[in-house]
Amino acid sequence: MTHDSRGDVMTFLNEVAADYPGAISLAAGRPTDTFAHRLSPAVLMDALQLFASKGDYPAGVLQYGRTAGLIHDLVAAQLRHDDGVDATPDRLVITAGCQEALVLCLQALCRSPGDTLLVCNPTYIGGTGAANTCGIPYAHLPSVGGSLSMRIELEATRLASLGMRARAVYLIPDFDNPTGQVITREERCAVLKVCERQRIVVLEDNPYGQFRYEGAQVPAMASLDGAGSVIYLSTYSKTLAPAFRVGSALLPRTLFGDAAPSTALFRDIVQRKSFLTVNTSQLNQGIVGGLLLANNASLRQWVEPVVAFYMANRAALLKALTRELGDVEGVAWNTPEGGFFLSLNLPFPMLADDVTLCAKEFGVVVMPMNFFASDASHDNVVRLAFSAATPSLLDEAVTRFAGYVRSRAYVHCA
Amino acid sequence: MTHDSRGDVMTFLNEVAADYPGAISLAAGRPTDTFAHRLSPAVLMDALQLFASKGDYPAGVLQYGRTAGLIHDLVAAQLRHDDGVDATPDRLVITAGCQEALVLCLQALCRSPGDTLLVCNPTYIGGTGAANTCGIPYAHLPSVGGSLSMRIELEATRLASLGMRARAVYLIPDFDNPTGQVITREERCAVLKVCERQRIVVLEDNPYGQFRYEGAQVPAMASLDGAGSVIYLSTYSKTLAPAFRVGSALLPRTLFGDAAPSTALFRDIVQRKSFLTVNTSQLNQGIVGGLLLANNASLRQWVEPVVAFYMANRAALLKALTRELGDVEGVAWNTPEGGFFLSLNLPFPMLADDVTLCAKEFGVVVMPMNFFASDASHDNVVRLAFSAATPSLLDEAVTRFAGYVRSRAYVHCA
Repeated sequence: MTHDSRGDVMTFLNEVAADYPGAISLAAGRPTDTFAHRLSPAVLMDALQLFASKGDYPAGVLQYGRTAGLIHDLVAAQLRHDDGVDATPDRLVITAGCQEALVLCLQALCRSPGDTLLVCNPTYIGGTGAANTCGIPYAHLPSVGGSLSMRIELEATRLASLGMRARAVYLIPDFDNPTGQVITREERCAVLKVCERQRIVVLEDNPYGQFRYEGAQVPAMASLDGAGSVIYLSTYSKTLAPAFRVGSALLPRTLFGDAAPSTALFRDIVQRKSFLTVNTSQLNQGIVGGLLLANNASLRQWVEPVVAFYMANRAALLKALTRELGDVEGVAWNTPEGGFFLSLNLPFPMLADDVTLCAKEFGVVVMPMNFFASDASHDNVVRLAFSAATPSLLDEAVTRFAGYVRSRAYVHCA
Repeated sequence: MTHDSRGDVMTFLNEVAADYPGAISLAAGRPTDTFAHRLSPAVLMDALQLFASKGDYPAGVLQYGRTAGLIHDLVAAQLRHDDGVDATPDRLVITAGCQEALVLCLQALCRSPGDTLLVCNPTYIGGTGAANTCGIPYAHLPSVGGSLSMRIELEATRLASLGMRARAVYLIPDFDNPTGQVITREERCAVLKVCERQRIVVLEDNPYGQFRYEGAQVPAMASLDGAGSVIYLSTYSKTLAPAFRVGSALLPRTLFGDAAPSTALFRDIVQRKSFLTVNTSQLNQGIVGGLLLANNASLRQWVEPVVAFYMANRAALLKALTRELGDVEGVAWNTPEGGFFLSLNLPFPMLADDVTLCAKEFGVVVMPMNFFASDASHDNVVRLAFSAATPSLLDEAVTRFAGYVRSRAYVHCA
């Protein structure tokens, strides 16, 4: 069973959750609600009033507005401060969440038949779903067989031999959804070299970059990009709240060394946006703008307690996994340095029917990695999300899940 | 010069406005800011708090949410009360403005090569722009040569002879943008018959329906639709504020008599939305929901003073036109029963360069109907918007425009 769409996956998970309301979910990758009180209606309206005091309210905020955005200056400043990318407002489009940014970039980049998006295997379903809904072909990179840059080059060559063209590659270099992995600095540079040589645009999606729990920050690919091959995608869904639906796409100064194509791409994206959503809600931009103003265009301090919260969740998850599953042969997991997700290998396949059974009999819901994969290569892997739960729930969830694992696996006791 | 895109048109008009800041604009079709104080930050916060008091705040509002929407019950009730359409929440998708609804419907309806959108000539650029950005072909109906229903049938037959298929027709039956015209009840019924016979889905866009200044309301095509051929598109951009970016698409109970295809279409639209914008901003839905709750799910009373304002604008525009241009041969205009726009015929072509000259020399900006047309058939027509101005500005604008007209036309004095 392969799931091509968010709709299918979410419907399935919602049905499981509805059928087994007592089950703890490790499937949902949404941010925690724990700090939502910081965005009470009163706080939101203070932010709007602060933003309005700098400009033209209500006319400037309640009306239709500039297609590329109202708060491009503030967002560019925040991306410079927090993500270390060379952002300027003239290359930034404010979008209805990062998903719209992805759609716009794909539509503008992949205009000829055979123009193809490369994605990892497994990958975030929003990436393949955006390509699908735009009628743009995509190809999964082989999941093994050399470094990421080598696999990108091989796949681009293979596509070229079929008369197709790798036009873009979708990557989440920091704390990948669904795997939790980080692409190393060396590999980022190698990927950039290949992409420059092959003229492949990197769509660098960075929703989780601010949530690092250990290790040193790796520079964003956009900040390592000397050639002009990276479009940097960002969102406030995880740092502020998903309800704003405010994201952005930052174009490079040049496209593979030429400024004119980058300017043309920017104009094309803006024009397409005008026919997709007209402009991103000025009201939401005003509120986000006010929050950025109140925080000196940096969300580092704002997310500090949230980072601590997720870090404690991760610690609880790792501790429980070690305690409950540390001695089970064939069970292994990564230690994500940040983000919302951990990848767990099992000594048996875990697919949709298994999830249902596990929810019913053991009271815990996990996400099969198969849902994000193009083939059976990840049938023995599950994604565990630790963002929406609490340490005690995570502990209990792992205890329950270990019961399920033991019921299926041959257990070697130490 | 034909303008294919909102981007081109808006860029042109913005440049004209920037170059000649003293010029009065009759070009912008945006709603008035006069009543924007009714949506102060405090009012918005009260609305959000009212909505939140009925549900789950902040978790239910600040998070990701149901793809098809959070306030589908309230919006369905409002459409029943105010627009007289048979709306139920299960067939309603809340979208990021009506433009997204249009894109989603086109993508879901026109999936085979040759599936074509029919549009009027002239038509709203958001309609053709949505088709363009989705790579969907569109065909303008002939602007003359029989009734609308006859022209739809002729064009569908012509397309079929080319191996193409008229899959949908985009109409603004109430106070059309750009012409200001209303489709009569008889013609609506005739169009519905043809569309049922030809299996053409009517995309009925109704942004202006609540702004009627004289005459009896004509039933929405969705409410006259016995066959299941109408998707009803709605928006709060004109009744509340464009900044919310909240619109909707209401699907018929059946598609040409069959319930299953309508259900399948609904699911397809929802799935596509999940990959375009994930979900419509829950925050904006919460605020709109609170305003609907506070108004018993009807905006009739809310828009009453706005209707009176636009009606006074229309009266001032008509009075000034009669005074200044009533005796100029070859000048004629319609009396729109509602909406934002009036269509004015001139005895000479008025295109982009003429608009620039008129702005420069006479201090008034109008919108060439050519911008909305597929050919030269409307080169002698301009669209005058009376929504964003005031009676005195409209009077002065017409006086100035009459100066321009007299400078170009041979004038027969009475």
